Amino acid sequence: MKKIHKLLVANRGEIALRVMRTAREMGIKTVAIYSEADRLAPHVKFADEAVCVGPPPSNQSYLLGDKIIQICKDLNVDAIHPGYGFLSENAAFCKKVTDAGIIFIGPSPESIEVMGDKLSSKHAVAKYNIPMVPGTPDAVTDREVAKQKSKDIGYPVLIKASAGGGGKGMRVVENEEEFDEQMDRAVSEAIASFGNGAVFVEKYITSPKHIEIQVLGDKHGNIVHLFERECSVQRRHQKVVEEAPSAVLTPEIRAAMGQCAVDVARACNYYGAGTVEFIVDEKLDFYFLEMNTRLQVEHPVTEQITGVDLVKEMILIAEGHPISFKQEELTINGHAVECRVCAEDPRNNFLPDVGTLTTYIRPQGNGVRVDDGMEQGMAIPIYYDPMIAKLITYGKDRNEAIDKMIRAIDEYQITGIQTTLPFCKFVLRHEAFLSGQFDTRFISLYYTPEVLDTAPDADEEAIAAALAAHLILHKKATPSQESTGGQLVKSQWKSNRTALR
Amino acid sequence: MKKIHKLLVANRGEIALRVMRTAREMGIKTVAIYSEADRLAPHVKFADEAVCVGPPPSNQSYLLGDKIIQICKDLNVDAIHPGYGFLSENAAFCKKVTDAGIIFIGPSPESIEVMGDKLSSKHAVAKYNIPMVPGTPDAVTDREVAKQKSKDIGYPVLIKASAGGGGKGMRVVENEEEFDEQMDRAVSEAIASFGNGAVFVEKYITSPKHIEIQVLGDKHGNIVHLFERECSVQRRHQKVVEEAPSAVLTPEIRAAMGQCAVDVARACNYYGAGTVEFIVDEKLDFYFLEMNTRLQVEHPVTEQITGVDLVKEMILIAEGHPISFKQEELTINGHAVECRVCAEDPRNNFLPDVGTLTTYIRPQGNGVRVDDGMEQGMAIPIYYDPMIAKLITYGKDRNEAIDKMIRAIDEYQITGIQTTLPFCKFVLRHEAFLSGQFDTRFISLYYTPEVLDTAPDADEEAIAAALAAHLILHKKATPSQESTGGQLVKSQWKSNRTALR
Repeated sequence: MKKIHKLLVANRGEIALRVMRTAREMGIKTVAIYSEADRLAPHVKFADEAVCVGPPPSNQSYLLGDKIIQICKDLNVDAIHPGYGFLSENAAFCKKVTDAGIIFIGPSPESIEVMGDKLSSKHAVAKYNIPMVPGTPDAVTDREVAKQKSKDIGYPVLIKASAGGGGKGMRVVENEEEFDEQMDRAVSEAIASFGNGAVFVEKYITSPKHIEIQVLGDKHGNIVHLFERECSVQRRHQKVVEEAPSAVLTPEIRAAMGQCAVDVARACNYYGAGTVEFIVDEKLDFYFLEMNTRLQVEHPVTEQITGVDLVKEMILIAEGHPISFKQEELTINGHAVECRVCAEDPRNNFLPDVGTLTTYIRPQGNGVRVDDGMEQGMAIPIYYDPMIAKLITYGKDRNEAIDKMIRAIDEYQITGIQTTLPFCKFVLRHEAFLSGQFDTRFISLYYTPEVLDTAPDADEEAIAAALAAHLILHKKATPSQESTGGQLVKSQWKSNRTALR
Repeated sequence: MKKIHKLLVANRGEIALRVMRTAREMGIKTVAIYSEADRLAPHVKFADEAVCVGPPPSNQSYLLGDKIIQICKDLNVDAIHPGYGFLSENAAFCKKVTDAGIIFIGPSPESIEVMGDKLSSKHAVAKYNIPMVPGTPDAVTDREVAKQKSKDIGYPVLIKASAGGGGKGMRVVENEEEFDEQMDRAVSEAIASFGNGAVFVEKYITSPKHIEIQVLGDKHGNIVHLFERECSVQRRHQKVVEEAPSAVLTPEIRAAMGQCAVDVARACNYYGAGTVEFIVDEKLDFYFLEMNTRLQVEHPVTEQITGVDLVKEMILIAEGHPISFKQEELTINGHAVECRVCAEDPRNNFLPDVGTLTTYIRPQGNGVRVDDGMEQGMAIPIYYDPMIAKLITYGKDRNEAIDKMIRAIDEYQITGIQTTLPFCKFVLRHEAFLSGQFDTRFISLYYTPEVLDTAPDADEEAIAAALAAHLILHKKATPSQESTGGQLVKSQWKSNRTALR
């Protein structure tokens, strides 16, 4: 056991404040770092000490690992919490921190390394019975081999460039007749984009749900899971509405996914908080996608339904304590929903919006939690992720949590910038969301900016009618390119490790 | 079943907002009433409609039952929620509301009536096995009869005027030797104050804990309890720090008190939310004190540990729905603490403080809930109870809830007025509170204003030393008159029904 007395959060915004609040509750002194653009940010004011690491953008400040380690030495900091994004999944930074005698509040560099690469993570979990999306284990170049494999898997299949990313060299093939044409296009795109025509073929999940399992491991070999989070509502491949538990999982599937997640964590000797992501199809078959070796943005919904403070567990685990509870002691109590409040314009393809928070008044009361790093009068820096707050509500059951969320959204007063809140409210009232029968295609199937212009308290029927009319006019009622959802975004495998997800 | 479409809250401040938030979540329109002093209050802005009922003080506005009923008729309001205080335990008002065809969100007038009087409530519960503080069933005037009774009960005993109130005609008798003298004094005080020398004699509980049980009844005869709240930390006989569950009750005593509370509620055919108060001695024997036939100020701690929205249950019950859960489905999850933030000066005997909230920034984050009815820039009206907010924290266990509370108190920024928060922080760090071994004598035994002037982050030892020195100097280490606690205040039986408790 090594007691942590002073902790530096190598991050900014809401997650820096989130971590520092728990640290303070544990009697641990806090150190903030900040860029010149964040000089007046709440996380800087909250900390016991704060050090400027440089100007924006992040590669001149928040990503300067060596400088951050030096600050720790100068200020006698004994632990670093990396938050999410930035250096949180940087194995080299983790190793440097550890080598400098500072506790990295997260997993070992080896765990980060193994899970940071698709092939090595697949290899690591091979000895466990982890379901994967059926597909070719290795890249193929021969059209007939790929075609035979596609037949074995069953259509539709997804062809994707082995060197791919960003959707380039990626094709959905609906049936055998169109295979040759799509394969040729994928290969030529792959050669043009990456100089490498090799492709993978895998089963294309037409109605993909993104469901992830929170895990915790300690340094004594104990690993537990804290149930699932449903994160299928995404815009531009980023989550925007999350909830726990899922509205559709059965206790049996929940237990099976939980066991899988624990096995994945065990496969890389995991300790700390981590998240195992799955893609779930319409039959509720689930497939392992990847493991995120850090705290997740949407962790509060898990905290609300389990009563576990995940940051506190992370800190205790880093100190060498065993996990403070046993798997069988953990139960799901109630339901929680999170809406990400991003400075984006939902009427304009969710493009980031800039400006000053001329009004910023948070909702309050029973069942409402706001995690943010902003205050009224602040300008939103243009250099960083546009998420300004997370609005979390919880209730006895799913309907109550949703009712509280809609009330809280109505109570949230923000002027000066556009936010995702009107979109979130649309989601929460939509029949597909309410029924639980939705997947990562939610936006492409149901959303158009026009729905936001229906009077907010117009009855549901009017909204539904307006939407139906739009869908007929614009023929959006079938899956579009956008709608490949989780599977596509995951093909950009870790290409953007430091981006906020 | 009669669906409520529009609800008027016959109250102000935090409880008006609290009720309206849940109403909004349930799709119910809200109507606020306000006095001229509350024209700009948040509860007025929050409501869908708001009506001024008159000038302060309350007997010219918030207590004008007939006027409030007329407003309901004018605005097609179908239900009134009375909050706590004001008209909430006024059986005549409740009956008038009901007679006007408006739903009173609370119990029947008969339940209020029966429980509003000590003798009728005793009589009502007689057929159940409800433990009462041992004492004379009727008032006595004969000294020898009283003396014999005291011997039977066992010393110390409390002599109190049968017509009493406000501590007049009340004497603690430690042993038989001093009985005659104390009896004579009590009788002469009673004659001087009330013109009636009759007294009751009852067992004096030397270490009284105030512990209460939340109950819910519906109109189908179902009654459940929602466990206990520990409310022993009081200043001027008013609660200031509450928690759920109690740190000292065993599961067996909890179950027994719960059953007693259900029996008390059944004895008056109770429906709605109510609270059965007990006095608990150092052996954890418990005695019925009274039933409050309304929502309690400290109800949020129960909501946090049970996941039940009490206001939602009250509204559903008023509509005719059965309670939404069964007793056996209810469990305690975690621990919650509430601190009342009152505009009072803890350095000056908790006298109400007036002024303007020049800074008012609420704490946020995991495990923190603030219920208030104030905002920055507002002046605190002098006419009403000085409570401006309730700060509630919850965690996996008691220590975690306390740690979060101390963090949240430190984060709460209030300038312009003095508040009870520094005192609350002192309580939360005190060994007696931390051990759970405290009772209503907390302030008289442990508190002096000097303890607040110790530097806030001075280590615990320094605070303890300063305190010990003070206690020795001022000989406060023995119980004083102030320390008779719950039993004394309850002797003022309902004398102040409309006051906030």
